[in-house]
Amino acid sequence: MTRAKKAAAKSKTPRGKGKKRTKSKTSAKAKTVSKRKKVVVAATAESMAARQRDISISEFFAKNRHLLGFDNPRKALLTAVKEAVDNSLDACEEAHILPDLLINIKPVSDNKFVLTVRDNGPGIVKQQIPSIFAKLLYGSKFHSLKMSRGQQGIGISAAGMYGLLTTGEPVQIISRTNPKRNAHHYHVQIDTAKNKPEIVLDEECDFDLPAGTSVTITLEGKYQRGRQSVDEYIAQTAMANPHATIYYNSPDGSIYEYLRQSKELPFAPREIKPHPYGVELGLLFKMARDSSTKQLSAFLKNEFSRVSSRVAQQICEKAKLRSTLRPSRITLKQAEALHATINETKIMAPSTDCIGPIGAEELQEGLKRVVKADFYTACSRSPSVYRGNPFLVEAALAYGIKNNGDNKPDKEPLMRIIRIANRVPLLYQQSACAIYKSVLDVNWRNYALSQSRGALPTGAVVLMVHIASVWVPFTSESKEAIAHYPEIIKEIQLAVQDCGRKLGIYLRRKKHMQQELDKRRYIETYLPYIGEALQDILALKQKQVDTVITKLKRVLEKSRKL
Amino acid sequence: MTRAKKAAAKSKTPRGKGKKRTKSKTSAKAKTVSKRKKVVVAATAESMAARQRDISISEFFAKNRHLLGFDNPRKALLTAVKEAVDNSLDACEEAHILPDLLINIKPVSDNKFVLTVRDNGPGIVKQQIPSIFAKLLYGSKFHSLKMSRGQQGIGISAAGMYGLLTTGEPVQIISRTNPKRNAHHYHVQIDTAKNKPEIVLDEECDFDLPAGTSVTITLEGKYQRGRQSVDEYIAQTAMANPHATIYYNSPDGSIYEYLRQSKELPFAPREIKPHPYGVELGLLFKMARDSSTKQLSAFLKNEFSRVSSRVAQQICEKAKLRSTLRPSRITLKQAEALHATINETKIMAPSTDCIGPIGAEELQEGLKRVVKADFYTACSRSPSVYRGNPFLVEAALAYGIKNNGDNKPDKEPLMRIIRIANRVPLLYQQSACAIYKSVLDVNWRNYALSQSRGALPTGAVVLMVHIASVWVPFTSESKEAIAHYPEIIKEIQLAVQDCGRKLGIYLRRKKHMQQELDKRRYIETYLPYIGEALQDILALKQKQVDTVITKLKRVLEKSRKL
Repeated sequence: MTRAKKAAAKSKTPRGKGKKRTKSKTSAKAKTVSKRKKVVVAATAESMAARQRDISISEFFAKNRHLLGFDNPRKALLTAVKEAVDNSLDACEEAHILPDLLINIKPVSDNKFVLTVRDNGPGIVKQQIPSIFAKLLYGSKFHSLKMSRGQQGIGISAAGMYGLLTTGEPVQIISRTNPKRNAHHYHVQIDTAKNKPEIVLDEECDFDLPAGTSVTITLEGKYQRGRQSVDEYIAQTAMANPHATIYYNSPDGSIYEYLRQSKELPFAPREIKPHPYGVELGLLFKMARDSSTKQLSAFLKNEFSRVSSRVAQQICEKAKLRSTLRPSRITLKQAEALHATINETKIMAPSTDCIGPIGAEELQEGLKRVVKADFYTACSRSPSVYRGNPFLVEAALAYGIKNNGDNKPDKEPLMRIIRIANRVPLLYQQSACAIYKSVLDVNWRNYALSQSRGALPTGAVVLMVHIASVWVPFTSESKEAIAHYPEIIKEIQLAVQDCGRKLGIYLRRKKHMQQELDKRRYIETYLPYIGEALQDILALKQKQVDTVITKLKRVLEKSRKL
Repeated sequence: MTRAKKAAAKSKTPRGKGKKRTKSKTSAKAKTVSKRKKVVVAATAESMAARQRDISISEFFAKNRHLLGFDNPRKALLTAVKEAVDNSLDACEEAHILPDLLINIKPVSDNKFVLTVRDNGPGIVKQQIPSIFAKLLYGSKFHSLKMSRGQQGIGISAAGMYGLLTTGEPVQIISRTNPKRNAHHYHVQIDTAKNKPEIVLDEECDFDLPAGTSVTITLEGKYQRGRQSVDEYIAQTAMANPHATIYYNSPDGSIYEYLRQSKELPFAPREIKPHPYGVELGLLFKMARDSSTKQLSAFLKNEFSRVSSRVAQQICEKAKLRSTLRPSRITLKQAEALHATINETKIMAPSTDCIGPIGAEELQEGLKRVVKADFYTACSRSPSVYRGNPFLVEAALAYGIKNNGDNKPDKEPLMRIIRIANRVPLLYQQSACAIYKSVLDVNWRNYALSQSRGALPTGAVVLMVHIASVWVPFTSESKEAIAHYPEIIKEIQLAVQDCGRKLGIYLRRKKHMQQELDKRRYIETYLPYIGEALQDILALKQKQVDTVITKLKRVLEKSRKL
């Protein structure tokens, strides 16, 4: 790109200063316009129609690859790792297997890497491999409401597509589902114009695990340590997933081992049906029209969560609809009545055992593992609902972070925020995230931190926020920031404020104790002089002086009601 | 949602405090886990395979509708208006017609509106209407590199889909392409499972314009004035499009008229081919393989911009490839050599007459129309390139904004940023935008503004930034923020710093003049006393005193080299 810039600078010079915008502006403009008009012919409805055509989803994302997290080489490397790791962890947990991950990043050149992620999951059935790794919008998680890392069926295929675009190399997959059989070895690449997988190689091979999957992507990237690095991502992932063992061979040759700290599988999430409160009129109408149930009451009971026969009956009655109405014959008017009634009826909140918190204590422990600090606190909110989707928010806070040696001591740092969604750390687009907005909108001066308007508070504070949901609403397909749903922002603020209040109490008490100590020191400094003076004035003996001073000290300390 | 929350609060109480996490924690946990394990069965490769399926792009966006700008009712109304207006302006300009827009928002209830946008464009050919308005990823702009407002073929269909989802109503379109024929009247709605249009009504009708299109969407929304309102969006659109006349009937009955201020059509953008510097290896490989050209040199010359026969020949030679090589038979190795050589060869920067600046002066005028201030400045950068796409950045700044009466006088406000991309105002997701990041990273204290760390500078400043490109990289499909491409951030910073420097000079001069005035007032205050004193001491006459004082004043003013 720098080359291009230079060329741009040069190509301008010859045409040079004669074309300055300031001189004889209008005439020059008129000329260029007329000149241009010759080139650009006015379109007609017909000429425009001739250019209308379908856009394949792969073409769309290839051109808009920043939507998927492939804006620049450094981020691209991280995104590819993230997508592969997310898939591996999800697969292991679904199969109730304690995950053992091996992540290997081998540099081929300064800007080209071979990434391999291997898991001990259940493996992938042969027929599914090409579509899973080389077709966008293909997956098992989109059509269900269930807490998982992946949700859209885009991620890993997008990483493969990026690899293909930047290096021309296909994705390599080895997967074994059965210890008694050979593994399948595939090389696949996406046909972007059709969004379909092309199989380059298909053979059987050996695999060093009884079951599991290994995926290898060759891609353009950049390795750089520090915040927003692959290293940091893997460290935070290990923190949020204490049940996983992760081996990581970094491009610079360092080897990281995160052994599992708990042999207990995390909470196994359940799939749920949509809650009636979150379903909009149009969707309700469509669901009813498409439903295979015979009766309206059965439709309500079967296709939504928390609707019992009694509630279904009640809704039909209130909406003045026959409970035997065939849902596929419902009219828009009837659906409107149904929709309005649903929202006026008391329905139990969505079941919340479908989402698993990390837990306040575990979160605090996790934070302790990463940052050494003077004070820790945490808060786990009970589940809430946005657009019918259950979610919950947890927060943990550490204050008085010990200097790692790399801070500039002259400036107080801004608060650091660690964001986690369904156990996946989010490293990019912090300022677009609902978590950032929520933290920014809290008045931290109430909690004894200093804060400039429009900025994060300052202080040696780390705040970690986790949001778990059956459907986390991300602001883009790259899943880097959470969308600003008011319900979510409110819950985050409540969690964060809870931590803030406890921090405020701690900081005020600390300040108080400091003042107390200062006063005490003051008293202790001056009492001997008072003693000497008294000795002189009243001609007391040393013993008497000691008694008086002890008493005086006690009285003075008591009198200050601190 | 509040209902649901309340219900959630209630449903917890009966199960009550017995379930407290603090009591007998481990055993309680073990129990719930074992209980859950009964419910959630471990998945196998086979059971997971059975659940894999295709996801339609419409289903994807219906579920992720916040990606399209439909997070909440207020934003949804704005997004729908924006998509319709973008399309109308694009159509008029493409057909070289001065746009006359009529925007009508009629409230049906508090949260339901009927939005109609009518233009005097060329109209839409009958066969295209259903796909344009009820099929995602269908359009004429995606496959070309050309500066336009729309680019993805999603917007208006998404607005229609949102209307359908929230109200069940189809999109209504009337379009006429020929004054001698009747207009076509369609009601269409999207089939989300298939991403295909369903035609509900298809008839001919009359239309009050000789040619043009009118689109009507019924949708759930919320009307609220202020920043980020439809009103604000339309005002900013009028500002950035002085050649358009816009009539706007707002939901509260107010009527706004923005008459065109210029009868000259804006710069008519040309379509260009991709520049070789922006094409990655994988894409180059694919383009060559798919090319119908017979020779490598012809391929380079025909499918890229700025590659002459001479340059094509030169590239082939350097890459050690025959210029007669058939592109469709190129190997990955050969493509690699070609790619490397292209990036080592001097190629003229992309032609820049394909993007049209608003112009520094026009931008400043535009700003003047909206904000009254003491000082204005503007800067229009020459075009640059990111990933092979030409773009340019312009900025305008106003300082000393007059109080509108609604500011709080006790606090200095943060700088206000107006962001515009290809003449479309961006109202949401400011903090996710490359423009915001660039402005934040400038050290405004250099330009005599005060600024806290991590925050925008304070002061009565409005900064307007416009970016024009053949392909603006937005962070999401809703086109609210620009992605953080380093090349773009650099150009924005250069433009903004240029304005900043001029502001700094102005502010320092102003401060200086203030000091100067203070000193002069000081001199003028004390000189008479000096005169009196001299008169007393030296016994001078009044005339002599006057002369001395005039001389003294002149000398004093000269001596201060200010």
